[in-house]
Amino acid sequence: MTGNISSDYKKLMEKIKETIIFNSAQAVIQWDMETMMPPKAIGLRSQQLALMSGMQHKMETSPEIGKLLESIEKHPDYGKLDAVQKRNIYLIRKNYDEQTKLPEELVVAIAKQRAIAVDVWKKAKATKNFAMFRPELEKNIELAKKAAEILMKVKRTATPYDALIDIFEPKMTAKEITKVFDELREGLVSLLRKCEHAPKQPDTSFLSRKIPIDVQRKIAIALAEVVQYDVTSKNAGGRIDQTEHPFTNGYYDDVRITTHYYEDMFASSVFSVLHEAGHAIYEQDLNPEWMYQPVGTGCSSGFHESQSRTVENIIGRSREFWVYFLPKLKELTGKTLADVDLDKFVHAINQVKPSKIRVEADEVTYGLHIIVRLNIERDLFADKITVKELPEIWNQSYKDYLSIKIENDSEGVMQDTHWASGYYGYFPSYALGNIYSGQMLETMEKDLPNWRKQLAKGSFTEIKQWLAKNVHNQGNLYDPADLIKRITGRELTVKPYLSYLNEKCSKLYGF
Amino acid sequence: MTGNISSDYKKLMEKIKETIIFNSAQAVIQWDMETMMPPKAIGLRSQQLALMSGMQHKMETSPEIGKLLESIEKHPDYGKLDAVQKRNIYLIRKNYDEQTKLPEELVVAIAKQRAIAVDVWKKAKATKNFAMFRPELEKNIELAKKAAEILMKVKRTATPYDALIDIFEPKMTAKEITKVFDELREGLVSLLRKCEHAPKQPDTSFLSRKIPIDVQRKIAIALAEVVQYDVTSKNAGGRIDQTEHPFTNGYYDDVRITTHYYEDMFASSVFSVLHEAGHAIYEQDLNPEWMYQPVGTGCSSGFHESQSRTVENIIGRSREFWVYFLPKLKELTGKTLADVDLDKFVHAINQVKPSKIRVEADEVTYGLHIIVRLNIERDLFADKITVKELPEIWNQSYKDYLSIKIENDSEGVMQDTHWASGYYGYFPSYALGNIYSGQMLETMEKDLPNWRKQLAKGSFTEIKQWLAKNVHNQGNLYDPADLIKRITGRELTVKPYLSYLNEKCSKLYGF
Repeated sequence: MTGNISSDYKKLMEKIKETIIFNSAQAVIQWDMETMMPPKAIGLRSQQLALMSGMQHKMETSPEIGKLLESIEKHPDYGKLDAVQKRNIYLIRKNYDEQTKLPEELVVAIAKQRAIAVDVWKKAKATKNFAMFRPELEKNIELAKKAAEILMKVKRTATPYDALIDIFEPKMTAKEITKVFDELREGLVSLLRKCEHAPKQPDTSFLSRKIPIDVQRKIAIALAEVVQYDVTSKNAGGRIDQTEHPFTNGYYDDVRITTHYYEDMFASSVFSVLHEAGHAIYEQDLNPEWMYQPVGTGCSSGFHESQSRTVENIIGRSREFWVYFLPKLKELTGKTLADVDLDKFVHAINQVKPSKIRVEADEVTYGLHIIVRLNIERDLFADKITVKELPEIWNQSYKDYLSIKIENDSEGVMQDTHWASGYYGYFPSYALGNIYSGQMLETMEKDLPNWRKQLAKGSFTEIKQWLAKNVHNQGNLYDPADLIKRITGRELTVKPYLSYLNEKCSKLYGF
Repeated sequence: MTGNISSDYKKLMEKIKETIIFNSAQAVIQWDMETMMPPKAIGLRSQQLALMSGMQHKMETSPEIGKLLESIEKHPDYGKLDAVQKRNIYLIRKNYDEQTKLPEELVVAIAKQRAIAVDVWKKAKATKNFAMFRPELEKNIELAKKAAEILMKVKRTATPYDALIDIFEPKMTAKEITKVFDELREGLVSLLRKCEHAPKQPDTSFLSRKIPIDVQRKIAIALAEVVQYDVTSKNAGGRIDQTEHPFTNGYYDDVRITTHYYEDMFASSVFSVLHEAGHAIYEQDLNPEWMYQPVGTGCSSGFHESQSRTVENIIGRSREFWVYFLPKLKELTGKTLADVDLDKFVHAINQVKPSKIRVEADEVTYGLHIIVRLNIERDLFADKITVKELPEIWNQSYKDYLSIKIENDSEGVMQDTHWASGYYGYFPSYALGNIYSGQMLETMEKDLPNWRKQLAKGSFTEIKQWLAKNVHNQGNLYDPADLIKRITGRELTVKPYLSYLNEKCSKLYGF
């Protein structure tokens, strides 16, 4: 006996809508934990998040979802579903199969341990004490390995680490990433050498002039306005707060970003805001008809990073952006930057120079930071290295890849929140995002030959519409490999990104 | 066959712990809605809160709780449970019986409608447009009536309105409140006349001197420090934010307050902070062993208000408090208040004068504001009046009780958030809180004859310990009528509150 496919589909989507709403509520609580929560509340908060992730898991694995899925998939009229409906079914099935294999105790244990590890990481980082963080990181990784081994079987990946990558970049593998990254590394290292040996070097001294935090807050709002991330109107769907580590969090009508203000490093917040705003407008511009549906999310973490890095770098570090925004910046900062000229400014914010901290890295060396992390994660999950060895391996890698000496673990292995937060397999997304952004730029140049002229006038509208149409509105309708091909007509390739960087650097550095 | 009572009790408490944690998570989301949420998110937020209140309801009415309750209550060893365990069972049973009678659809509908009504109320209030708010208020009340009629049967109260009162003040009735309030009104009106005709009248002009908001923020933090509500330390369990309507929200280690800063009315925030801090320290000083248990909450809304009004008024408007704090206030405000002397200041902040806004009312007229609301609520839920008539009735009542002419509904019937938020039966708690606070003061005077001297030195420790021991630590171990008798040895009586007020006013006004 076959059921009524359209009523079953409706019922299923009602159930899924609840899981999505519930998930968005947890996002608020996560955001609060990072931004507003009184410190004493950490124990209670960890209990709240653990409970809710258990409930989320229970909702997503409810037998009713399984029954409805089966009834729809086996229905003779299944072929008559439209592409969006089929994609929803595919995504629900994928998640259902994976989640039903993960025991609820494991899901709850991971959520609990995650909250504890983040808390300890913050303290350990503040006191440069990796020994303090180590046991929590070990527990984190042990739990992640358990999950990865289960997921590997469901996802049929070659390795546990590939199962983790698949969470963020569906169907991507460490092997493929390694291949792409090898080409990326070669290009970046060669470009780094060229920049280092170029006769024309930037003067970056004015970037450390002091800009008061309240002025930097105004700059952040002005930047958000340019890229049409609304944080001020009566119908604003966003807000900007301060956290140690900038992030974006939210869903459709409630997407919030954070930044970090350093009085003597105003550019840090400038590019954090642009980066996070790039994430935010992706979420906000998702097809509104798909709200509360699985297709109504970003395509992958790599695609998300492509959007943030497009706004941060391709847009935000372009000469044209600053043709428009430098006068505004000067207006907001009084006399502090009055003497800085446009070309010097643009070269300074595009300085290529190996550095210790990933989030402060320039576009050329950034990829190298990611490759260090990929290598470590891959070896960790292949049991080739241990948590204990991480500081040493980290420091050696920075020496090898970036010729940088790491002085302590806070500026080394503990700099990022990801491992404390239980995100393993995420880092490659950053470099993939750069690669995607390069490919998309090549296509956008053809579609919008005047985009730079528009930008120089302060108009981001055309660009945003292009991104919305090609990326944001597509939501999760395609896997990332398919989406990049649909947009650019090409498979994943490093070349456009490298040639964008080459062109930019050769102009700035005069080689 | 009887089960194992101690393992059943343990199982039951595990289930209940989850309901309490989940409830505390919703409190965070509620707080966020009032303080931080981008305006566009209101639709999503309303869905989140509705979903979660449905889930909360499902958890609290799970058949497993019913079975465990029954097995424990019928167990031959039930009598061997200690007083705390018995109280937990009593409170769980009460809630279970009530909640199982409320259909989940109704619970969800109330939560959804509440979020919408609050949103519309804000807009209507901003534009002085009761007609805009009216349909939402009507829906609110219709839903509340449905719930009240169901609860009336379970709680076996005489009227639907009594069932609502019982939510906030267990076992209290409108009849008893009316009796007590009659005596209160008589005392307050007579006192008001005396103050109005006294020769010594306060000069309050300096209360409208402008104090910048950022200075007022510092004052708020300094006040919190005096009453030991920690918002600044590395282990702080609280925070202070700004909302149109001050409130307290949270649980044990995460209790947050809000205030409202008016540049030309600094006292407004001063007393809001003290009021909300009074609520906050109640929650924070609950017996830590009872965290995640039903006994680990405040006794009743009236008791909660007794604590907030003790800190706001008995402490915060006492001469002794300002012996200590006026010099601090002067330090924080520069030259603005330099010329104000202590006695003038204390008289000004204790000015007795009929006014339009409840939260700004003095201690004498405050009770009259509450009586207006009690009368309206009682008549609304007895179907004697309609929502349409509210503005007229409100304005007439203010004329009758306070000789005040209301100019528009924003300063009239729409001034409070309660009816928009779906809180019916709450208002009496404010006046009951005053009455409890007077009774407790009488007892505290005997136990701590030096409390005023201590306070004048800036020491709140003895007072806080007394409140913690007698009220906060008692949690929800007793019904309010029992607790007030245990603390003071007397049944509910208005007399100590009236004599406290008489004594204070006669000193200040010289009658």
